[in-house]
Parts: sequence; C-alpha cells; structure tokens
Amino acid sequence: MKKIVILGSTGSIGRQTLEVVQEQEGMEIVGLTANTSIDLLEEQINQFKPKCVAVMDSLKAKELRKRVGHRVEVLEGMDGLCDVATMPEADIVVTAVVGMIGLKPTVAAIKAGKDIALANKETLVTAGALIMPMIKAYGGRLLPVDSEHSAIFQSMNGEEADAIESIIITASGGPFRGYSKEQLMSVTLEQALKHPNWSMGAKITVDSSTLVNKGLEVIEAKWLFDMTPEQIQVVVHPQSIIHSLVEYVDGSIIAQLGHPDMKLPIQYALGYPNRLTNTYRRLKLAEVGRLTFEEPDKETFRGLHLAYEALEAGGTMPVVYNAANEAAVAQFLKGNINYHQISEMIERAMDHHNPKVYKSVEEVIEAERWTHELLENK
Amino acid sequence: MKKIVILGSTGSIGRQTLEVVQEQEGMEIVGLTANTSIDLLEEQINQFKPKCVAVMDSLKAKELRKRVGHRVEVLEGMDGLCDVATMPEADIVVTAVVGMIGLKPTVAAIKAGKDIALANKETLVTAGALIMPMIKAYGGRLLPVDSEHSAIFQSMNGEEADAIESIIITASGGPFRGYSKEQLMSVTLEQALKHPNWSMGAKITVDSSTLVNKGLEVIEAKWLFDMTPEQIQVVVHPQSIIHSLVEYVDGSIIAQLGHPDMKLPIQYALGYPNRLTNTYRRLKLAEVGRLTFEEPDKETFRGLHLAYEALEAGGTMPVVYNAANEAAVAQFLKGNINYHQISEMIERAMDHHNPKVYKSVEEVIEAERWTHELLENK
Repeated sequence: MKKIVILGSTGSIGRQTLEVVQEQEGMEIVGLTANTSIDLLEEQINQFKPKCVAVMDSLKAKELRKRVGHRVEVLEGMDGLCDVATMPEADIVVTAVVGMIGLKPTVAAIKAGKDIALANKETLVTAGALIMPMIKAYGGRLLPVDSEHSAIFQSMNGEEADAIESIIITASGGPFRGYSKEQLMSVTLEQALKHPNWSMGAKITVDSSTLVNKGLEVIEAKWLFDMTPEQIQVVVHPQSIIHSLVEYVDGSIIAQLGHPDMKLPIQYALGYPNRLTNTYRRLKLAEVGRLTFEEPDKETFRGLHLAYEALEAGGTMPVVYNAANEAAVAQFLKGNINYHQISEMIERAMDHHNPKVYKSVEEVIEAERWTHELLENK
Repeated sequence: MKKIVILGSTGSIGRQTLEVVQEQEGMEIVGLTANTSIDLLEEQINQFKPKCVAVMDSLKAKELRKRVGHRVEVLEGMDGLCDVATMPEADIVVTAVVGMIGLKPTVAAIKAGKDIALANKETLVTAGALIMPMIKAYGGRLLPVDSEHSAIFQSMNGEEADAIESIIITASGGPFRGYSKEQLMSVTLEQALKHPNWSMGAKITVDSSTLVNKGLEVIEAKWLFDMTPEQIQVVVHPQSIIHSLVEYVDGSIIAQLGHPDMKLPIQYALGYPNRLTNTYRRLKLAEVGRLTFEEPDKETFRGLHLAYEALEAGGTMPVVYNAANEAAVAQFLKGNINYHQISEMIERAMDHHNPKVYKSVEEVIEAERWTHELLENK
C-alpha cells in the first residue's frame, strides 16, 4: 500500500491526484492540506479518510475542526502544513500547492526522506540550488508531475545522463499564439483564462498564455535534469500531444506522447517506477491526423525570453522573475493592470535586481519579499 | 575495441555500417562477406583490413583470392559465410545479407554466442520460433538494425516488458500512398523503385511500395518483442520522422524520432547499450513543421493485410508469405509480371499452403522451396 500526502488537495492538481488514488488499487491517502477551501476538504476527508489534515488559514482550520474534529486531526498554518508533509506514515508527498507557500513544507518533506511528486513549480524555480543537493542528501526521489517534465523524465528512462545532448520542451503556445505585440495589448482577462488544451487553475492558465509558464518550466528543467540554459529548447506544438522530448548525443530523440490529461503524469509519479494499468482514452495518431511545430516568438512573448535571462543571471534572479510574475498576474486577475503589463512588471523587477547566490530558504523568501515591495511601491 | 563482422558488406546496409565504423573510435572490422560484388569487397578489404572474408559465389571467391590472397583469407560458399559469422575474434555480427541465405550464417553466429545486429528481415520472419529461444540459450543479444524496430527497442529502454500494451510501427506509405486499386494496376518498375524518404536496395524499395516491407516488419516485431498480432499496430506517417512508438498500460506512448538515416539505428546497435556521439544532422521539429498520420489502406495494399493473415495462421505460413514475395518481386524486377500481381502471387501461395509448426531450419527452407516450386509451376 503506497501512503500518500497531498499538499494542496483542493486545487486542480490535488483533485486530479485524488481521482487517480480512487481509480487505483494499492494507494491510500494519509494526509491532505488546503489553503482555505474547507468545504471541499471536508468532502475529501469523508471520502478518503486521511489521518491528518492541515488548513493554512487559522479561522478556517477552527471551523473545520468543529465539523470533523472527532474523525481527523486538523492542524493549521505553515507549521500544520509542515507536520502533514512529514507524517511518518507517508511514502510520497504530492506538492500541489500553488505558489511560494509550497516551499517550506516541500523542504520539510525532503528532509524527512519522503519521495516528492513535484507539482509546485516554485520549489525548483526559486530554490533549485538548495533543493537538488538536499534531495541527494536525504535519499528521497524527486518525481516530476508537470506533464512536460514527466515526459522528459519518462524519455530518460534507462538512459545514461551523459548521453543527453538537450531537452526539448513543447509549448501549446497558448490562446494568443501568432498574436503581434499590438494584438496582445488588447487581450482581456476573459480571453486569458481560456486555454485550448489543458484544464487548469486561473493563475497557471494566465501564465500559460504569457509563456511565463513555459519560462518557469525551463528554469525548473535546468535543476531537475541538470541542464545548461543552452541545452533547453522550447518548441511550440499547439496540439499538446508530444509532451516533451530528449535529444541524445547520437542524434536520436525520445519523446513521450498522449492525450493532454494531467492524470497520466500524476499516476506515473505515484506509481514510479511501475506503470499502472488504467482505462484512460488511448491516443490514436491516425485520429489526431497532424502534429505541428514552430519556433516560439520570444520577441512578442517576453515572458519566455526573460526566463532565459533570469537563468543566465542566476542566483536570486529566477526568484524575482517568479515573484514579479505572481504579483503581476494577481493584479491582472483583479483587473488592476492590463495583460501586456504582466511581462513589463517582470522586466522592471529584474532590471532593479542584483542577483545574489542564495544559501537558505530565508534568502529566497527575502528576495521574494524584496520583489513584492518593489512592485507595490511603483 | 569492438570487433565486428558484417555479413553482406557490399549491400546498402553493409556499406552504411562500414561508414559508421569509419566514423567511430573503438570499432574494428574483423570479417566481411559478399554474394558476388568482389570489386567493392576488394576496396573494403584494402580500407578496413579484415582478417577474413567470404564470397558466396565460388568463382568470384577464386578471382578475389588471386587479387588479395596474400593479405586476407578468402573463404567461399555458405560454409565460408558461416565460418566468418563465427570467427572467434568477433563480438558482434551484423547480418546485412538480403534474403533467406542470411538464415544459416545468422544461426551459426547465434550458436557461437555472438551479439547479432539484425538487419536481415528473413531471420525472424521465417524462423522466429527457432531463433528467439536460441538467442536465450546461447547468451548473445539480438539488436535490431531496422529503423522501426530500433525505434521500438529504444522506446522500451528501462521499461518492464509486462507494462507494454502495444507497439505502433510507422510506415511512410510508400510512393503509392492514396492510390486506388485501379491506379496500382498501372504502376511501372521505374515508379516502384523511387522511395520518398529512404535510400535502399531495389528489393526493399519495391517491398516498401507494396507495404510487404511493413508486413515483414510486423511479423518480425511479433518475435523480437514477443507481441500478439493484436498488439502490433501500423500507422502511416509519410514524413518518416517518428520511427515507431510503444504504448504502455498507463496510456503513455514513448517514441523515437530522427531524420530518416539508417546510420543512426546501425550505430545504436553497434554501440549498445551506449549511445555514441556523432555529427549527424539534428532533427529540428520547427523546421519539419508538421507530422501527419493516417490509417494504412490494407484493402488496397493487400501485402500488409496478408502479413497479419500469415501471423494468424502461424507455423510456416510467414515463410510462404516471404518466399512468395521474394519470387514475385524477382519476377517484377525482371519485367515478367505486373506490379499488382506481386500481392496476387503471395495470396495464391498462401491459399495453397497448409502451415506446419517448424522445428528446424531445414523445415523452414523446405517450406521456402515448396513456395518457389508452386509459383514456378503456375
């Protein structure tokens, strides 16, 4: 029986992880956490019967405790999240929390030697230089849940690390693929929230449309697969059928394909190294008919270009890239700024930042705080 | 230093294997064989300095012996081929002979415990039920050189055999893709010898246009990867960029991609399990732009349909399928029959055959002889 903790079980990835657990034999939920969505968390408690849950928001935690306190331990705040992340019973921790608040519980889980099914982008984007040596030191495995990184991970199966020449991350191109700079100026919130292939949360859907999502994946891939920026390519592939590729030193390319369905990489991470039988819809290439590919327009979609700049600058610069994007997208979702100002805010923050080599989570969080302060004062 | 024997070094695959050996460090040619092309074989002897060569044709062998006898041992006939195939110095034997004459020396090499880089389709198509247990018993490895089987082999790297749901062999569709039965009636020899993507010998080019080549690959794949006929799919992919795919029980598909270049799978087999660095042209998906896929038209291209029928019938039926095709293509290349008669001859032979379970190479060769006799008497 594989015992699973989900950090962020009420979000998009969290809910899909629970679907996978429900469909598969041999998996048991031992811990769940949520930010504020206690109604859904209560349903999940009733269905999956975890030993322990945590709610980030203290008031919500108290309310939930009143409702379910006799059936499950309800912890609260960041300490609560970290306690659930390090439950002795857990074999694997799915980090499906969105944003920087995922960092501390993820570090706690790694230090407790847990396997990590990594769905929180910020972990590696902001703290990769700390996380990767930590994973090695504490003996757990880091299993990517993102469909692109899962595809790369699967395409590296059985291969030697030094035989890898480059990795090729596919990008749907988002809903505004082919748009000119001028056209991007008039994009509305409603348009930005419609993704052609993937069903995801609002923040990630906007990131996907700006290609910042792809930029974050590039930075993440650098750490996860120990690549230089030059070894990481992005190719636009609107059908999202090839989820990413790995090119080897002999010129051979191995790729992973499938229908766009997050449950596949989630299941792969939970079952690793075994592939688990399921009844998901099978890909029939003759039905798909055609797959197309084009270069990403890094000039128009500055978000992707800036990710490579952040990687080149190194140190805390990717923290600023990510934090500035978080701040900008939050403003955009509130209707306070226009679409094209998202990348402008990222660039402004990066222009003002002197990147430093970070040696602790605190320094990472400090760089994040610096970014938010800078952008609030503008 | 990896020591290599090439059976059939003057053919298309043989020549490309020598190019790979020339380009790579750490490889040495110890033996070569040819059917009759002693001029080219002499050049290869001068360049690669094997210890021993064999020529199938006795008269040609004698002539070559006069020319180069002081520099290299020149053996002759089937015994000569078998002697070269079992040279004690050899680590790996590339079986690049076209046709049934490849069978005996391949068996000899397997029994000598050599690794086999398998480019001879007939080996598994006609004698798979003997060869596969033999490979296990004598401890060598069977490494596919065909680009499709190499792609499948590469896509199975690091995976468990019982996690495989199906394999998907790609087919260019040949030069007559989309033709109706009526259009196929008027195909000329010249048209049949032009392949859109691959540069190959005449027999294989015709087989590729009739989809018999794909049929042979389906039968070969059955043995090589221990699949049922139902587990083997064929999809037409005119660009020949995805060389084949493997579908797993979780719905995930792993594929191998590259420019169409036989040197890549040859090099992979020679270097296995290591990938060897080279300077072959890299695949850029954005330059390729689009990949297309369609169902094969098994109704019009009967050759592929008949391969599945031969597999279902089992026993010696695939021997008859292959031998009838060999006989028919030979007649077609001589201008004695029309294009559409190739599949008709295969079907006629299969209709007349009562398949038997074979237990020796002799029984396989007897089924082949039976087929040729049947078709000559018509």
